[in-house]
Amino acid sequence: MYNEKMYNLGNKRSVIRELFEYGKKRIAEFGADSVFDYSLGNPNVEAPKEINETITELLNTLDSIEVHGYTSAPGNLSTRKAISKNIKERFNFDIPENNIYITSGAAAALTITLNALSTKDRAEYITFAPFFPEYNVFTNAANGVLKVVPFDEKTFTPNLAAFEKSLSAKTKGVIVNSPNNPSGVVYDEDTIKKIVDIIEKANKKFNTNIVLISDEPYRELVYDDIFVPYLPNYYDNTIVCYSYSKSLSLPGERIGYIAVSPKLHMADAVVLAVAGAGRSLGYVCASSLFQRVIEKCINVKVDIAAYKKNRDLIYNSLTEIGYQCIEPKGAFYLFVKSLEEDANAFSDKAKELGLLLVPGDDFGAKGFVRLAYCVSYDMIKRSIPAFKKLYEMYQ
Amino acid sequence: MYNEKMYNLGNKRSVIRELFEYGKKRIAEFGADSVFDYSLGNPNVEAPKEINETITELLNTLDSIEVHGYTSAPGNLSTRKAISKNIKERFNFDIPENNIYITSGAAAALTITLNALSTKDRAEYITFAPFFPEYNVFTNAANGVLKVVPFDEKTFTPNLAAFEKSLSAKTKGVIVNSPNNPSGVVYDEDTIKKIVDIIEKANKKFNTNIVLISDEPYRELVYDDIFVPYLPNYYDNTIVCYSYSKSLSLPGERIGYIAVSPKLHMADAVVLAVAGAGRSLGYVCASSLFQRVIEKCINVKVDIAAYKKNRDLIYNSLTEIGYQCIEPKGAFYLFVKSLEEDANAFSDKAKELGLLLVPGDDFGAKGFVRLAYCVSYDMIKRSIPAFKKLYEMYQ
Repeated sequence: MYNEKMYNLGNKRSVIRELFEYGKKRIAEFGADSVFDYSLGNPNVEAPKEINETITELLNTLDSIEVHGYTSAPGNLSTRKAISKNIKERFNFDIPENNIYITSGAAAALTITLNALSTKDRAEYITFAPFFPEYNVFTNAANGVLKVVPFDEKTFTPNLAAFEKSLSAKTKGVIVNSPNNPSGVVYDEDTIKKIVDIIEKANKKFNTNIVLISDEPYRELVYDDIFVPYLPNYYDNTIVCYSYSKSLSLPGERIGYIAVSPKLHMADAVVLAVAGAGRSLGYVCASSLFQRVIEKCINVKVDIAAYKKNRDLIYNSLTEIGYQCIEPKGAFYLFVKSLEEDANAFSDKAKELGLLLVPGDDFGAKGFVRLAYCVSYDMIKRSIPAFKKLYEMYQ
Repeated sequence: MYNEKMYNLGNKRSVIRELFEYGKKRIAEFGADSVFDYSLGNPNVEAPKEINETITELLNTLDSIEVHGYTSAPGNLSTRKAISKNIKERFNFDIPENNIYITSGAAAALTITLNALSTKDRAEYITFAPFFPEYNVFTNAANGVLKVVPFDEKTFTPNLAAFEKSLSAKTKGVIVNSPNNPSGVVYDEDTIKKIVDIIEKANKKFNTNIVLISDEPYRELVYDDIFVPYLPNYYDNTIVCYSYSKSLSLPGERIGYIAVSPKLHMADAVVLAVAGAGRSLGYVCASSLFQRVIEKCINVKVDIAAYKKNRDLIYNSLTEIGYQCIEPKGAFYLFVKSLEEDANAFSDKAKELGLLLVPGDDFGAKGFVRLAYCVSYDMIKRSIPAFKKLYEMYQ
């Protein structure tokens, strides 16, 4: 009656969802103050005021058909030109507007890219733990397979020897997610260069053109003026999947893009394959209103100071108590070492104190929990005694 | 380097697109008045004023996170409740909110539904000519096959004998599109009942539960108070794919829904498969802003009188000249018999007079051309002499 794979995907409640439901029950029983919900990566910082101002301006100045009508499938030409110009200004790299395909967010950018690239013989994708679990879903939906490279527990950077071994003649692409969900780690230039060297070597060995897929919805969310390398500057066969969900706090509006480096092998054909994949997955165009909004707000950024304040409070408080944490340089996640081997059991104990922490197992990192600190500063403050109590339970 | 199928989909320029490009060139050479563009089904009637008023109200009254944040994957609960209530009020049929899955328009609704339903053994879909050509793309992307049933040239209703023969143990679903693109025909209750009878017979014969997929983006665009049967009232195994693109002139905002009849065989499991398919295709949620907009504007309708005025002018003028046309009862398309056997040659001759008419071949109806009359009334008026001239060329 239905597709079994799709049913399983719809039926399998994620751990995050389970935690969320638990939180709702607990709130009903003990009140809102009894729950410290660190489970969801839903930005809590408002969209910059320019967003709503721009929407109002567009509604007041443009014809209804211009604002709400179909755009071409890759998106408005003027919006793509603005994105291209912005990339040039910021990263000194030329991606012409014809290589930009505006998407309904990063998830669409990834599914479209993977469907455009996968061939019968070559549909293996490699990513680095810890990683966003939907990569499994998206690669499978593109008839592909995801292979996960383990990480160095000290630096949280990829185990490069394992990476080198994982590459084969079947490898189609390597997915890099930096700033990283769930660890908040940002790969420095040296790490990127090493990753690229290994890919170049594999290309020679297997006579391939492995594609580097840079999934970067958290690019703008970095602290302490840290440098986030722009991958097309380091490797020719690169496709960037970008989203405005976090940079403009618009996650529900689904707006982002695919940028195909013009230096990619057979770039023009890949651009057409991207358009074909978008068409076959039912993406007609991204929201026409929000295409115009991001065009006008291309240099606007969400208030990162609020996230930084959160990061400093949670990171400093937890390390002071005695927790081992990876200092997040970007995104809004903190990855904390579990106080017992089984992070699920640890998460269960935390739950009893109202702390909703996501076990790292699904992210490919057993023995850790993820905290999404895109929450109110006040909630973080109020949660510290519970973290202390939890720590003491293990002493 | 890329997926061949996706490349072909991206590379194959549609006839409509070719016409559009030709029109642009002609305008550059001979001026805007030299082209009468009937090629694109892009609504020309403004969104009702309530749409922009509601957007402004939402921005002024709701918190940014509420307006622009993630919604749950099936959509806001309150929006789904409003849709469910609206269906009950209009069609006296109960589709509970849990069976509603809000999508990024009808294309997404169809691709998600087909991916949710297709199984290895059963992935054949049947539709009735003339039909929307993207059905081929969408069924193929769901590992399915589309079989097209011919039509009766007098009534433009399905050839029922051929329909009966086309059903088999492999049939997964039947796609009905009424009001129809490209013919503007609306199937009456008698036709629907006959289609359902044939499906019921096949279900018994093959021990199947064939799904009726009602693709109805043009439901609200009907003239002369004609009755459009609501298919869940006639057949239990029905899924409705709806869009607000035309009913509210919001095609670029991509908002619609899937409604799974609770009487469908294993409905609860199919609802989960729908959620799984949405997830695997990269649809996180439909635009959060526009979910709230349609909730508040659930009873608002576009100005249908403008389309009716267009229909009357173009239909009456063309039949008066001598063209054979199907009188459109809905949508904004007119299907006209070509004046020579090859509609492509006819379309080419029309082009020379500035008339952009789409040959029916891709719609599964050779010997016809489609006119999209969602254009300005003035353009229709100005185009009549060219239609006369074209007609005279064939006398």
